[in-house]
Amino acid sequence: MKKHNFSAGPCVLPQEVLLKASEAVMDFNNSGLSLIEISHRSKDFVEVMDKARSLALELLDLEGKGYQALFLQGGASLQFLMAAYNLLEKKAGYLNTGTWSSKAIKEAKMFGEIIEVGSSKDENFNYIPKGYSVPDGLDYLHLTSNNTIFGTQIKKFPKTEAPLVCDMSSDIFSRQLDFSQFDLIYAGAQKNMGPAGATLVVVKEEILGKVTRQIPSMLDYQVHISKESMFNTPPVFAVYTSMLTLEWLKAKGGIAAIEEINDKKAQLVYSEIDLNPMFEGFAQKEDRSNMNATFNLVDEKLKESFDAMVKEAGINGINGHRSVGGYRASMYNALSLESVGVLVDVMSELERKA
Amino acid sequence: MKKHNFSAGPCVLPQEVLLKASEAVMDFNNSGLSLIEISHRSKDFVEVMDKARSLALELLDLEGKGYQALFLQGGASLQFLMAAYNLLEKKAGYLNTGTWSSKAIKEAKMFGEIIEVGSSKDENFNYIPKGYSVPDGLDYLHLTSNNTIFGTQIKKFPKTEAPLVCDMSSDIFSRQLDFSQFDLIYAGAQKNMGPAGATLVVVKEEILGKVTRQIPSMLDYQVHISKESMFNTPPVFAVYTSMLTLEWLKAKGGIAAIEEINDKKAQLVYSEIDLNPMFEGFAQKEDRSNMNATFNLVDEKLKESFDAMVKEAGINGINGHRSVGGYRASMYNALSLESVGVLVDVMSELERKA
Repeated sequence: MKKHNFSAGPCVLPQEVLLKASEAVMDFNNSGLSLIEISHRSKDFVEVMDKARSLALELLDLEGKGYQALFLQGGASLQFLMAAYNLLEKKAGYLNTGTWSSKAIKEAKMFGEIIEVGSSKDENFNYIPKGYSVPDGLDYLHLTSNNTIFGTQIKKFPKTEAPLVCDMSSDIFSRQLDFSQFDLIYAGAQKNMGPAGATLVVVKEEILGKVTRQIPSMLDYQVHISKESMFNTPPVFAVYTSMLTLEWLKAKGGIAAIEEINDKKAQLVYSEIDLNPMFEGFAQKEDRSNMNATFNLVDEKLKESFDAMVKEAGINGINGHRSVGGYRASMYNALSLESVGVLVDVMSELERKA
Repeated sequence: MKKHNFSAGPCVLPQEVLLKASEAVMDFNNSGLSLIEISHRSKDFVEVMDKARSLALELLDLEGKGYQALFLQGGASLQFLMAAYNLLEKKAGYLNTGTWSSKAIKEAKMFGEIIEVGSSKDENFNYIPKGYSVPDGLDYLHLTSNNTIFGTQIKKFPKTEAPLVCDMSSDIFSRQLDFSQFDLIYAGAQKNMGPAGATLVVVKEEILGKVTRQIPSMLDYQVHISKESMFNTPPVFAVYTSMLTLEWLKAKGGIAAIEEINDKKAQLVYSEIDLNPMFEGFAQKEDRSNMNATFNLVDEKLKESFDAMVKEAGINGINGHRSVGGYRASMYNALSLESVGVLVDVMSELERKA
């Protein structure tokens, strides 16, 4: 039976990407060798890295604007550290919108003063703080654009004098934004881009080289830029599969085209949450994420039968995170509208049965 | 035509491993989902991580001896930094046997005093220093067991009071050693273990927690141990493929069995280098690596015809590193004796023709 994969990440990827990635593990570019057993310095792989980097900039409309794209290792968790190591001289502002922001703050505190410009911790992060003020003289302001666990998403980004740093791990390439408002964007690959093991970093070069501390080579964006994202052996398979996913996105019409589908998927599931008396949403309506819809059963006693119906329908990965409970339907780029339809049908069926 | 893959890394992997990895990208454990689109917290993947970690300890005969195995990201290059971050309080000793040792030294200097206990830089690293003395009071002594670029390998490890740290990126799982003489072993996966993107760290727990500096979470071995190697999303594909390769090695009879084959391969190629007047070896005989044989043509004018013969025979990846020139035949665990035979035949043929 076909699976409908709502997993929060690692998550659903386009079927044609999986097929090409699987083939490349056996034979890459008809070379008679596997993708994972050739030198990363070979012409064939250097082309992959170059293409992945340029596609990322092209899709974000950041070509020729002073940005560099890098594919690194370590996930967003290592970026929490690298962002601070490279940019934090005295003080930085952080908007605290959940688990990942909190972790970013914790790591950055080792390198300077951290000012929490706003926080939604008081309501278990079910909203995005607004109307906060950003003090002058910050080295940067750090935001988390989408909060996978709580299902909230920043819709409007603040205008600041300070460089804007954004963790876009869970919604990059999903919606149109003026990406040139950001000076540093980072994202683990394992949502909208590829398998776990690669991390996209998009950085405006002019913000680098300003801190006085010595930066270890592997944590230094300038080192990675100077080596064209191959300072050391890159995560070959994850970069290749990310490149395939970016090619797939471009062929589909880019971010504008996928955003339209993502909007439809989100509207479909949120309408059901709002109209179906069996369910209630977790996040405040105006801050709802188009990537991760969080919701609960109004009557917990129905959990067993709902879970059974979900399983019966081939739906995978909708259990909520332990910090929120309930359910979470993650609807990344590669998830079809059809899959969301199947989930909504099951939700409606619960109402009819109850 | 069958390829004979002498690439220095990423490098040849067992064909059955490639096949299983390729299949898992389409359908993992008959789940109807790809390995790379399921949650890393799912039962199926947690089993993979647990198995990879326990197989690593089992094959190194380190079970029940106070060691932990971790699969991290960032390659050995990040370990240059992590080793120092976690262990270097005042001063450490480093044996400088080539490019990778030099890089490790460079990163460690940010954290304390580094004493080069020995160096073979005077002869472009074509030998392993011996008879050096190790000062008292070191936080650790750092060694590089095999030098991929220069083709040298440490055969006898020093006995010291200081904890022994060893970068085994290019010869781990290739030969029997008393691995319990080491307190920290690290190795990028992409030689004898799997695809690039995972790094094995084997650490004796009792040496940790002794430095006074604060360690960022992602660089802290104790954090990764406490989270059972899943502090953040691990590089799923690279860990799975490493697990498959370790299973393959165990089924073959473990390190003892593969060492026998590795010895035969090395003897075959070094005999040819020594007996064939067309070639000369680069590394000093007593320090020759069983993993990477470095050699040159005596008469550079034969390069074009030798290269053509090599290509004709389906041999891939024997160009030497730019620091050494000439040729390098890398003979990792998954390279067959047959492939080495093909190379030796081509070398003999050059002699007959010339």
